[in-house]
Amino acid sequence: MHVFYTPDLQDQAHYQLNEEESKHCSRVLRLSVGDTVFLIDGRGGLYEAEIETAAKKHVELRITKTTKAYQKRNHHLHIAVAPTKNIDRLEWFLEKATEIGIDEITPIICERSERKVVKGDRLEKVITAAVKQSLQAYHPVLNPAVTFSELLAQQTNAQQTDLHTSPQQTNAQQKNAQETNLHTSPNTSAQKSVSKLIAHCIDDEQRRYLKDLVQPHGNYLMLIGPEGDFSPQEISSALAEGFMPVTLGTTRLRTETAALAACFEINYLNR
Amino acid sequence: MHVFYTPDLQDQAHYQLNEEESKHCSRVLRLSVGDTVFLIDGRGGLYEAEIETAAKKHVELRITKTTKAYQKRNHHLHIAVAPTKNIDRLEWFLEKATEIGIDEITPIICERSERKVVKGDRLEKVITAAVKQSLQAYHPVLNPAVTFSELLAQQTNAQQTDLHTSPQQTNAQQKNAQETNLHTSPNTSAQKSVSKLIAHCIDDEQRRYLKDLVQPHGNYLMLIGPEGDFSPQEISSALAEGFMPVTLGTTRLRTETAALAACFEINYLNR
Repeated sequence: MHVFYTPDLQDQAHYQLNEEESKHCSRVLRLSVGDTVFLIDGRGGLYEAEIETAAKKHVELRITKTTKAYQKRNHHLHIAVAPTKNIDRLEWFLEKATEIGIDEITPIICERSERKVVKGDRLEKVITAAVKQSLQAYHPVLNPAVTFSELLAQQTNAQQTDLHTSPQQTNAQQKNAQETNLHTSPNTSAQKSVSKLIAHCIDDEQRRYLKDLVQPHGNYLMLIGPEGDFSPQEISSALAEGFMPVTLGTTRLRTETAALAACFEINYLNR
Repeated sequence: MHVFYTPDLQDQAHYQLNEEESKHCSRVLRLSVGDTVFLIDGRGGLYEAEIETAAKKHVELRITKTTKAYQKRNHHLHIAVAPTKNIDRLEWFLEKATEIGIDEITPIICERSERKVVKGDRLEKVITAAVKQSLQAYHPVLNPAVTFSELLAQQTNAQQTDLHTSPQQTNAQQKNAQETNLHTSPNTSAQKSVSKLIAHCIDDEQRRYLKDLVQPHGNYLMLIGPEGDFSPQEISSALAEGFMPVTLGTTRLRTETAALAACFEINYLNR
């Protein structure tokens, strides 16, 4: 099963792979005229297509079957995670979270983050590879890295916007969002209030399991801290902003493992 | 928090790190007399110790605090997984499963396995590193790789043994098992019947979610297939041996992701 990621594919009946993908299709995969391939537009569209022309730099396809909203999730999951010191671990998380199901990822630079910089294009490639491999019709959105306080501010602003936004405006905003390649899941914070969660490692009584805090079919934002955990100031400012403290279990988890555990759990609760 | 894995530690009041660990302790970590370290014996013992001597090749410790059965799990999880073509993916699974919680792992060589050989010592090191990092007092047991049919045969034999084994014999067997460094969790198959599960990718009606198949506090054996899935013959022979077909969700998961998803789900069901 050969899958290509074609974000610019609209509803046309024919599609031409770009030079790189054409080369991959005709030379690496050695596919030829009449062979079937699958296309994913990253916005829920899954397409079956037949190869009409198979030149080295020029592969033309005829769409033979279109499925919209393929395996559309019943919830919206946004995980904001501190990039790991060893970037492989963050890349690993992105691959696995994409396989299991995630809508939005934001790298957050925290007080104790050893890594302050992330290369978005590299991470984007990892996500796209996982999208193709696991046949996800919705491409998770990787937001630019922000500081912890910037993320909290974004949330506060988003909520204030929601309060003064009519459904019409929301749809318009979504259209813009789509055009500017922002996230376009139905469960945007503009439509449903966000369950704001923070998984910190300080062992206090307040932390509870996700299943005791959130409802299915929700819109979730989960914060996962760096190797050294969030600072007490970060935790208290998040709690002040209405984030609920979460425990992911009794064992010590690495940053990327905690982020994936949260991803597993939210998807599990939404089965 | 500096953790050392000391499988030969019994109940003595003093312990000497081996040459390699001594060097790591005194030269790499630059710890000195009076500093505190933690020891894990891999059989449930967590020890706090103070450095009495800190020579380059000779670090002596005095045990100051002993905790037995530290974070003892309330279930027994054995995952038999086909080694991935890229061994990094299997190593990644071992690290993550150790963090989340697993008792026993068996690499199984399947009909469609591209990788037929695994180096146990290398994988053992990965598990031990994760044990120390995530402070697991119980060291997961890595069994030698076996073929799929050998694994099924082992299960049949184990069951027959159970039927004719008195508790006394079982305890004796466990003592031997401990001496020969086999698995020593209380939930051995000799004590509790095993929930036998197989997660295959053929989309049929029979597959059910784990939560609908197993009870908490159980003894579970989960089979995870290679990149190309189990062969139909392997699936039917497993079903004939009483394995229950499981689905881990609707998305396409890589071998190591499926194995970790199963590990996460079993731990989740046993909270």
